[in-house]
Amino acid sequence: MAHNRHLIWDKGSSSVDERIQQFLAGEDIRLDAVLLSYDIKASIAHVHGLARIGILTAAESDRLGQALDDLEARRASGDFVLDDRFEDGHSAIESDLIEHLGDLGKKVHTGRSRNDQIQVALRLYMKEALAGMTGPVSDAAGACLDLAEREQMTPMPGYTHLQRAVPSSVGLWMAAYAEAFIDNLHLLKMTARWIDTCPLGTAAGFGVNLPLDRDAVSEELGFARLQVNPMYAQNSRGSHEIQVLSALGQVMLTIRRLAWDLSLFTTSEFNFITLPDTMTTGSSIMPNKRNPDVVELLRTPCGVVWAALMEIQNVLALPAGYHRDLQATKPPLVRGITAALQAAAIIPDLVGNLTLDRQRMADAIDQSMYQTDRAVEAARSGIPFRDAYRSAAAATAGGEAATDSRTPAQSLEARMSPGACADLRLDVLRQRLGAPC
Amino acid sequence: MAHNRHLIWDKGSSSVDERIQQFLAGEDIRLDAVLLSYDIKASIAHVHGLARIGILTAAESDRLGQALDDLEARRASGDFVLDDRFEDGHSAIESDLIEHLGDLGKKVHTGRSRNDQIQVALRLYMKEALAGMTGPVSDAAGACLDLAEREQMTPMPGYTHLQRAVPSSVGLWMAAYAEAFIDNLHLLKMTARWIDTCPLGTAAGFGVNLPLDRDAVSEELGFARLQVNPMYAQNSRGSHEIQVLSALGQVMLTIRRLAWDLSLFTTSEFNFITLPDTMTTGSSIMPNKRNPDVVELLRTPCGVVWAALMEIQNVLALPAGYHRDLQATKPPLVRGITAALQAAAIIPDLVGNLTLDRQRMADAIDQSMYQTDRAVEAARSGIPFRDAYRSAAAATAGGEAATDSRTPAQSLEARMSPGACADLRLDVLRQRLGAPC
Amino acid sequence: MAHNRHLIWDKGSSSVDERIQQFLAGEDIRLDAVLLSYDIKASIAHVHGLARIGILTAAESDRLGQALDDLEARRASGDFVLDDRFEDGHSAIESDLIEHLGDLGKKVHTGRSRNDQIQVALRLYMKEALAGMTGPVSDAAGACLDLAEREQMTPMPGYTHLQRAVPSSVGLWMAAYAEAFIDNLHLLKMTARWIDTCPLGTAAGFGVNLPLDRDAVSEELGFARLQVNPMYAQNSRGSHEIQVLSALGQVMLTIRRLAWDLSLFTTSEFNFITLPDTMTTGSSIMPNKRNPDVVELLRTPCGVVWAALMEIQNVLALPAGYHRDLQATKPPLVRGITAALQAAAIIPDLVGNLTLDRQRMADAIDQSMYQTDRAVEAARSGIPFRDAYRSAAAATAGGEAATDSRTPAQSLEARMSPGACADLRLDVLRQRLGAPC
Amino acid sequence: MAHNRHLIWDKGSSSVDERIQQFLAGEDIRLDAVLLSYDIKASIAHVHGLARIGILTAAESDRLGQALDDLEARRASGDFVLDDRFEDGHSAIESDLIEHLGDLGKKVHTGRSRNDQIQVALRLYMKEALAGMTGPVSDAAGACLDLAEREQMTPMPGYTHLQRAVPSSVGLWMAAYAEAFIDNLHLLKMTARWIDTCPLGTAAGFGVNLPLDRDAVSEELGFARLQVNPMYAQNSRGSHEIQVLSALGQVMLTIRRLAWDLSLFTTSEFNFITLPDTMTTGSSIMPNKRNPDVVELLRTPCGVVWAALMEIQNVLALPAGYHRDLQATKPPLVRGITAALQAAAIIPDLVGNLTLDRQRMADAIDQSMYQTDRAVEAARSGIPFRDAYRSAAAATAGGEAATDSRTPAQSLEARMSPGACADLRLDVLRQRLGAPC
Repeated sequence: MAHNRHLIWDKGSSSVDERIQQFLAGEDIRLDAVLLSYDIKASIAHVHGLARIGILTAAESDRLGQALDDLEARRASGDFVLDDRFEDGHSAIESDLIEHLGDLGKKVHTGRSRNDQIQVALRLYMKEALAGMTGPVSDAAGACLDLAEREQMTPMPGYTHLQRAVPSSVGLWMAAYAEAFIDNLHLLKMTARWIDTCPLGTAAGFGVNLPLDRDAVSEELGFARLQVNPMYAQNSRGSHEIQVLSALGQVMLTIRRLAWDLSLFTTSEFNFITLPDTMTTGSSIMPNKRNPDVVELLRTPCGVVWAALMEIQNVLALPAGYHRDLQATKPPLVRGITAALQAAAIIPDLVGNLTLDRQRMADAIDQSMYQTDRAVEAARSGIPFRDAYRSAAAATAGGEAATDSRTPAQSLEARMSPGACADLRLDVLRQRLGAPC
Repeated sequence: MAHNRHLIWDKGSSSVDERIQQFLAGEDIRLDAVLLSYDIKASIAHVHGLARIGILTAAESDRLGQALDDLEARRASGDFVLDDRFEDGHSAIESDLIEHLGDLGKKVHTGRSRNDQIQVALRLYMKEALAGMTGPVSDAAGACLDLAEREQMTPMPGYTHLQRAVPSSVGLWMAAYAEAFIDNLHLLKMTARWIDTCPLGTAAGFGVNLPLDRDAVSEELGFARLQVNPMYAQNSRGSHEIQVLSALGQVMLTIRRLAWDLSLFTTSEFNFITLPDTMTTGSSIMPNKRNPDVVELLRTPCGVVWAALMEIQNVLALPAGYHRDLQATKPPLVRGITAALQAAAIIPDLVGNLTLDRQRMADAIDQSMYQTDRAVEAARSGIPFRDAYRSAAAATAGGEAATDSRTPAQSLEARMSPGACADLRLDVLRQRLGAPC
Repeated sequence: MAHNRHLIWDKGSSSVDERIQQFLAGEDIRLDAVLLSYDIKASIAHVHGLARIGILTAAESDRLGQALDDLEARRASGDFVLDDRFEDGHSAIESDLIEHLGDLGKKVHTGRSRNDQIQVALRLYMKEALAGMTGPVSDAAGACLDLAEREQMTPMPGYTHLQRAVPSSVGLWMAAYAEAFIDNLHLLKMTARWIDTCPLGTAAGFGVNLPLDRDAVSEELGFARLQVNPMYAQNSRGSHEIQVLSALGQVMLTIRRLAWDLSLFTTSEFNFITLPDTMTTGSSIMPNKRNPDVVELLRTPCGVVWAALMEIQNVLALPAGYHRDLQATKPPLVRGITAALQAAAIIPDLVGNLTLDRQRMADAIDQSMYQTDRAVEAARSGIPFRDAYRSAAAATAGGEAATDSRTPAQSLEARMSPGACADLRLDVLRQRLGAPC
Repeated sequence: MAHNRHLIWDKGSSSVDERIQQFLAGEDIRLDAVLLSYDIKASIAHVHGLARIGILTAAESDRLGQALDDLEARRASGDFVLDDRFEDGHSAIESDLIEHLGDLGKKVHTGRSRNDQIQVALRLYMKEALAGMTGPVSDAAGACLDLAEREQMTPMPGYTHLQRAVPSSVGLWMAAYAEAFIDNLHLLKMTARWIDTCPLGTAAGFGVNLPLDRDAVSEELGFARLQVNPMYAQNSRGSHEIQVLSALGQVMLTIRRLAWDLSLFTTSEFNFITLPDTMTTGSSIMPNKRNPDVVELLRTPCGVVWAALMEIQNVLALPAGYHRDLQATKPPLVRGITAALQAAAIIPDLVGNLTLDRQRMADAIDQSMYQTDRAVEAARSGIPFRDAYRSAAAATAGGEAATDSRTPAQSLEARMSPGACADLRLDVLRQRLGAPC
């Protein structure tokens, strides 16, 4: 199959060994299929730029533009499939233009290189990935806020060290995740702004002998500014990818923690929460069980994303300029983004469809959990906190302080410090959720 | 030695095995020494907050504040050393206050926990680390810009795949690093803003039974806003650290690449650059050599920082709330920050003191490197780029195109696309270096 | 498409959301296609085992065995394709048996679970992967030994810190890689022995209520011994994968280093070596260049393998027993193994077809590189080494010691310590290459 | 302070900037203190070797040997402290010899370099680290086997997906960890054998101009064989470290999983186990709690070790030969080994002192957990497993199958497959624990 590949750089003299060829190609065709529409989009802007500086006539520009639009339409409809007839996505575009426009098709590559072509396609792809994450992350924050609001004062045990510590509330628990997702959201937006620069027109790292209209091309593609230096455009390959994955990785950290909570709270021993039926599966050998597979798998994209980051970081131990090694940054990038988007998309529904067993949660609050309340009260009445603490501890040890008539609700109401159960400040969180970054 | 430790939580009943004790302590004392001044600073603000809500009288607040100022003064002068007499930095502060103020000293811990104490200290430390990086990174960008400006049109070979590709310039090379450091700088500032929230007053993750004046405390400590939710304050432990390390890691990626260039360019084979004498060392067995140890070691903090990030990420596979595991996020954080600051501090001097061998660099530009110039010129005259390319390649193969009278300077002047050798746009870079993020 | 999946565990009550279903499936179908033949092989042994304990009659066992052989034949010929009609490879086998054998087909799952089914398939796959690496790694060692032998005394500069240090030889350089590959080979074999235990018959981690003939099944499958404890069979998921990747990663470390050497030695500046034409490619914009893409890409599987290891390690932060998270160990395992095998397969040809520029290498040995020879000679004559060293260094600084009539060959012949240029001990290496581990 | 350092390579011409000097030194002095006794030991063998080839007289060899013994005695007693008066451990040894023996002291460095000096010291250190792990790991396996034997048939719930699945036993649970530690032990020993080669006598990667008696030196130092090739001795730096950490990392994976189990089983909700008092601590704000800090911290060395491995792997993206970068492999190696040894040392006591709440564990086995028993019984009676499974599931859904008179003990006795509750095969495990690897 690969013997049909169009090898643009082949000057007829090489006898290219098939195994080598496959090693060189790696997964590029599969990955370039993900990037192809961005490559086409950038090619159109590039054509317009060439027309503005007189390299192409208006008529040529129109014909190339239309042919590229047509290619995109065929790609979107599935009529054009990037497969291993082609060396990569870049040469596929050029081949297609040549097939349809003859010699004119060859002109699309004037003033650019595959090096800036892949960089601009990746940049557009990463921008869209970050933008694509803001929806589910914002919705996840919203779902957590809604649940926190609905169950603002619903008591549940508060744990430290996985040990029951003090009475807490579903509101506090969910507001914690809301604030996390909101911080994640701001990070996504900040990161999108950080990478929002146009590398097109930097060619193989040294620019070209043409007065390219880079500013206008950048603007047409929706970039905030130019990535000025051509060598930096190459050097930045991978490092921008890393920062994108770091931002996605933060979302995955939040999701992994939430999934761990749900995994724990759905055990028979805790039994605070029931997952929606669609998020559990049966066992092949144990007919009695429904397993929380979805929340278990939601713990795993975190590792995928951070390992992908490390894989890219590893590639970058190189001197300046382009090296073929950089191709190896593509698979982990696409893998990390795909895993992150897929996981995040599930969260709003998951959070929105949890069933709480309020009675189980209330029952899990035992008398010993009020001791901090008692110690703080004593401290407020003037006893040094340490002494109050020691006296409460002594009472515990002696079995004396085991009961008073306190209820979980009273305990929650007393927790009045800003952000705590009696003052969750959900309005502050909602405001920050909607605020620009 | 550790048997002298003040174990605040010891209620007299435990027979604590020494080995266990050392395992629990880990490197905490050494690390808390790094954090102690931040802990003291936050303690002062906490005391002021307690006074504002009537838990402390003005007189008590003054005495506690003065005792804390005094402790900080002794710490700074070396009169107070945090060593393994103490369990950790937090208890050291309290012990010292009790020693000097008696029962009043115990009151400092009212309304807080070691959990938010460490969080606020770490937050202040990370903010300062990021701020501390902006100086050297900004200076590094400046040094690169200065060198780029001085050697704007000094020819040097441009490489792709480590193969000589086209004539390039020292200006282009250095401007690439300038732009990288500028992007790094903006990322540092963005990250500083992202973590700029105050966790103090969230106690062990559930707040306290006091109407703490968290907003004013946060403001006194210079934070931009509250970290609202107490459980999120605990959950965010580690994830903020990761993002700080990711920003520092970006700087290290730039430094590693620059160090690689210098390592290569100081080989006998390239021999483009001589390092300042202070940045080379002798060999213990080969008297003839001066080795570029500094630039070699400058490649390594990158791995330190990113591995530190992974170490922290690994800890965070946990349900919500505080777990003792989180203590293990401290060593990699401090290690990563220390390594990054130390490496970055060296760059401005290094870049500012490079000696260029301009003749060697010019001599390394051979005739074959003008072929892209020729192909682009042909393309401008109307020949499709692909055909121009093929014809240039054919000429190379036939040995025909080996010479014309072109000079490196002419080649550089022709490279007119924005950002390229003839249009480096150093002014744009300088402007962005000075711009707010 | 996925709505056609055979969901073995579906009891008709779930309304399974498609997006969730895809999230659960992940890349399982693609990965299980890699594992299917191992799963079939293990199923046959399992059937034989069930017959031996009377769960199946001889006739039933024969019919199931033949149907499984037939399935394997169809799989190998491409007539049976594991695609997303199936939930996973395990249910595909059972479905196929039911389709062909009716109720009898259902009996194949007696006494096992998908949990030990996947474990045994993975174990067989990993054993084969390690065995599959021994060929190319052994060939690589052989190719290095051959080249070392052919060019035993061919002078080339010896570098430390990338600085020219002392005269060395191609023989020494290549023998270094031979010994590395030999050590890699031994590690592969040791690791294969370490994982050579049979998990089949452990079901979901608790065994089953049948006196399974596990020992004979293990023997039929070619395992060295049982993995005894059923819960350990589950707990070991991932950790065995990690150790396999660690062994492969060692090979990749060797390959990355070799590729770096070749990348450096094929620069115009070093120019010691020309790669075979099949291992270089042209440039899309620079007609004058042949790029060493293959050796550049050979640097990258190292990061793939070690990042895959980290990705798996990340999954394993779990309590005992099976968790769905463990499915996430599959993609990095298959990815790492695939990348490693593909890279290793290229090395023997690469090493075997290097073209050396012996003259360039000899010319790169300059007079200063003899100073260690001179210092050691002085030391042999009784002058303390440190003084000899200082005197040689002083001579260098004064420019005096720049010449004597020494040749590279003389220098190499003087390097007589065991393993050094004059005594490479290739016979010792060859012997260890052939030795059992 | 560092201005007092003895800079062996300083030829008087450098004005070494202090900051650079500190950057170069890194943590070397602290780390070399760990390595110093190995360095001294190897120096003694080196001296003996020099005597055997006539470089030193017998008298010189004796005097050097005695001075080195004396240095080791002072080091062990604390009279000699490696501090920052010295550049590193290697020059400290030489300086000390010169101080005591004058010019004779300088002869110790004849025929070696700091490059093979550090390599041999590290190799000895790593061998001892692996040997040092075998004790605690073997003891941990023994403790698990003992507990498994004592509680062979003590019922506890068996979990998959953290959901109650089938009745299981403490015996099965503990035997799983026993087998894991036994596999870990074998891996430690295999790895020790893999790295058991002597690099001394390879100098800076090219050997020396002396007929060193490397074989006898290697034997004197207790190595199994020579690391033959001098360049490989340098190239292997880091890769041997990685494999050592990988073996230690496997132990840490076992410990992390065990710690997770204990963390879970000591929650109020599970409450199956009480930790020994020495392994829990109090809370600074919640007087009612005892926290399982030790088991929580036992989860963390796993990440330390694997991140250390990644840090080293990162350094190794280099061409052949020595580079100063390799110094950066030391801190993660020492850090990983220290963390691993410290954690492993705790396990035998921890496992040996667990208090089980047998009643709680038995009570947690509910009727639904017998359904697999019932399904397997039905399957044995001839009903296809799938149908038995469906019928059991249907019964569950209909609420019919909720009870029979089965006891946990009966369920365990029925689990008769090899390795399962009724046939734990502890004897097989004990045998493999004692077996040579």
